[in-house]
Amino acid sequence: MSVVNHRLTAPISSPSSGFFSQANFNSRSQRFAFQVKHDMVCKCVASSPVEQTGYTTKVSRNANMAKLQAGYLFPEIARRKAAHLLKYPDAHVISLGIGDTTEPIPEVITSAMAERCHALSTVAGYSGYGDEQGEKQLRTAIASTFYNNLGIVEGDIFVSDGAKCDISRLQMLFGSHVTMTVQDPSYPAYVDSSVIMGQTGQFLKDLERYGKIEYMRCTPENGFFPDLSAIGRTDIIFFCSPNNPTGATATRQQLTKLVQFAKDNGSIIVYDSAYAMYISDDSPRSIFEIPGAKEVAMETASFSKYAGFTGVRLGWTVVPKELLFSDGFPVAKDFNRIVCTSFNGASNIAQAGGLACVSPEGFKAMRQVVGFYKENTDIIVDTFESLGFNVYGGKNAPYVWVHFPGRSSWDVFAEILEKTHIVTTPGSGFGPGGEGFIRVSAFGHRENILEASKRFKQLYK
Amino acid sequence: MSVVNHRLTAPISSPSSGFFSQANFNSRSQRFAFQVKHDMVCKCVASSPVEQTGYTTKVSRNANMAKLQAGYLFPEIARRKAAHLLKYPDAHVISLGIGDTTEPIPEVITSAMAERCHALSTVAGYSGYGDEQGEKQLRTAIASTFYNNLGIVEGDIFVSDGAKCDISRLQMLFGSHVTMTVQDPSYPAYVDSSVIMGQTGQFLKDLERYGKIEYMRCTPENGFFPDLSAIGRTDIIFFCSPNNPTGATATRQQLTKLVQFAKDNGSIIVYDSAYAMYISDDSPRSIFEIPGAKEVAMETASFSKYAGFTGVRLGWTVVPKELLFSDGFPVAKDFNRIVCTSFNGASNIAQAGGLACVSPEGFKAMRQVVGFYKENTDIIVDTFESLGFNVYGGKNAPYVWVHFPGRSSWDVFAEILEKTHIVTTPGSGFGPGGEGFIRVSAFGHRENILEASKRFKQLYK
Repeated sequence: MSVVNHRLTAPISSPSSGFFSQANFNSRSQRFAFQVKHDMVCKCVASSPVEQTGYTTKVSRNANMAKLQAGYLFPEIARRKAAHLLKYPDAHVISLGIGDTTEPIPEVITSAMAERCHALSTVAGYSGYGDEQGEKQLRTAIASTFYNNLGIVEGDIFVSDGAKCDISRLQMLFGSHVTMTVQDPSYPAYVDSSVIMGQTGQFLKDLERYGKIEYMRCTPENGFFPDLSAIGRTDIIFFCSPNNPTGATATRQQLTKLVQFAKDNGSIIVYDSAYAMYISDDSPRSIFEIPGAKEVAMETASFSKYAGFTGVRLGWTVVPKELLFSDGFPVAKDFNRIVCTSFNGASNIAQAGGLACVSPEGFKAMRQVVGFYKENTDIIVDTFESLGFNVYGGKNAPYVWVHFPGRSSWDVFAEILEKTHIVTTPGSGFGPGGEGFIRVSAFGHRENILEASKRFKQLYK
Repeated sequence: MSVVNHRLTAPISSPSSGFFSQANFNSRSQRFAFQVKHDMVCKCVASSPVEQTGYTTKVSRNANMAKLQAGYLFPEIARRKAAHLLKYPDAHVISLGIGDTTEPIPEVITSAMAERCHALSTVAGYSGYGDEQGEKQLRTAIASTFYNNLGIVEGDIFVSDGAKCDISRLQMLFGSHVTMTVQDPSYPAYVDSSVIMGQTGQFLKDLERYGKIEYMRCTPENGFFPDLSAIGRTDIIFFCSPNNPTGATATRQQLTKLVQFAKDNGSIIVYDSAYAMYISDDSPRSIFEIPGAKEVAMETASFSKYAGFTGVRLGWTVVPKELLFSDGFPVAKDFNRIVCTSFNGASNIAQAGGLACVSPEGFKAMRQVVGFYKENTDIIVDTFESLGFNVYGGKNAPYVWVHFPGRSSWDVFAEILEKTHIVTTPGSGFGPGGEGFIRVSAFGHRENILEASKRFKQLYK
């Protein structure tokens, strides 16, 4: 490539006018502080929102953003962990909190990504914008690997940079006028993105819930599957199985009921199958194993917890062509438009990794990674069971849901952190139904899981 | 790592129940077809939206999605190109349309990415979820490389998977109740994301505009900078300089006026500086070169057109702490919440590439890439000027804006494609103010640019 840069004499890093000095930089954020609420959930609030000395724009803050009650759960936990490390700088903190993978990505996958990186430096191997929906070869491979014989084809697959990102894109697609149901407890991104989009009412402090959301309580008493006859009709039903945080997995019979419930109500299920590969028994790995599901469901999925792609960022969403709005317009067409307008496709390097993940060798390697974390799960389940706790989840999921009846989740979280230097996740962070529980993630190096087991046994013996 | 997979006997790709056969897969989308409108913009519409034979949900389609008038511009152009290739399978089609980079990524950058890939296969080098806002080292390097002496610091930088994605996240942040101004013509993602969020009225066919949006007409007559005294107040002002599509670059004096206009009105400027490195003269490379801008502006930027990262996906948005909503709440705090809830950070591999981009060697390499495309720009400008056209842009931008007075942009687009096998972009795709213009992108291999020049000269001699 012939190169000149005769027009680039002024370096961009040194603009000719140095208008601002560091002295001008006045951090107004100092006036905003974290306040600790009675329930120990931290809330980011303005200490004196109207007491301004400087300039403010005339743009009103989005009222929906103001409805959000707490910092997003996981950054809040990260903050607590950081504060703990300040207090105990020499502590060996073990993080079983955020659910972040710890084991190296199999080499068959990273080699494919590195190869794509090097190819991008060659004329023949360079590629720019890809299809917003993902590379055709990857979409085809995902369809055949995860949905073989289920009638899901390449065109139904939208490759993404992760399930969390797709959930918000789906909320943009649905808009502010839909109503929604969530499992309680559930992954916070469903509720928070719904609040941001204006689908909910205000937070009702007495109930620890947002108005206009149906919460399906999932408890040991109902086997973590809700009594659907007690649930009002909503447009959208978020359903995650294997569940985050409870680790509970819906049976084929239960999912058949759920699909029928959606069909009777004309609802759309957003099925989150991010942990499907952790299923050991014959529970469905996809909602599309249920007859008729394609007319009432879409599904989000991710490579994060299979290949250790939490940082690489790659997932997908299935929107079957059969899924139609009330006027007959295909949901997939509007989702395609959202993806084209608000997204430009996942990184081509991550997609090369995804393609390696679904190769025979890569798939085998992913199953080994999953198997390793499932061994960790066994250790954690055994630990808490030996201590006499009621323990749920774990069998088909990398999460163990431990019951501390009558206690505040955040109190237990704080106790465990203070006394064992182990970060867990307070169950109430996933909704009021999680109160009294702690989620323990099985993602960790083996020696840390064993050490954590030892510390739990010392604390609760 | 010790690995077992004794629990994984049932392969996920072969669920025990094969409920669906391919025969059950009935593509309803066949009832939906592309209709060609009078202005040659294709619209995706249902041929008979109420005539259903099968099941539909009772979920109403988002009325804002239904307002969108046309397929997103660039996928539509890709569709036209594909149709052309079907018609002329042997044609050597040259794409100067979508503005996609073509030159290999400098090796210093891809090597760093490949190294990160390999590191992810090691215990020491593995990383999972990163900070949602981006790796601290990268944020620091972006602040010092692009905003040195401007008072922008690491905490103001939010690393992203690209400017287009950030624009939609910003729209989620603002919500449905804000009003907006755009340059006319402008990059379609501003308007389309505004429509999706419900900020606009219906499309007004007579005016070729959406209701409730202020369009700042930018034409050769006003030097592509609007008469601000004729513009009504809105909450948000999208402003792109160097401009896509016109290539026009605002001077320091003009941007000072713009900042004053925003301050007078209490508006927020979303400044798109994705082409800043293409600036050759002393025009500002950042809105933050203008005194007082930090109180009224944020800025989106991208590595796409500097390092050839259109497929790798990496950009950033600057939200200064000084930018406050009317109640004094910092915009950055709400954007941080959006980023934490709806995004999980850019791919860690892409971020390793970004860090290499802003190393001294990488920055030099990026400037060489930019210099190469600027040579292309010279060739295109010379070509059209030699043919007697009025040509704009090009000097500080990789886009050349060619005037075809009195003609429809889509007609000219079709004529050029049919007669020269060159894909351009019709100016009217960027707004009514682009009618009569064609955008010619300078992204291309040198031999293709030279060949395109030859073909243009044959067509318009």
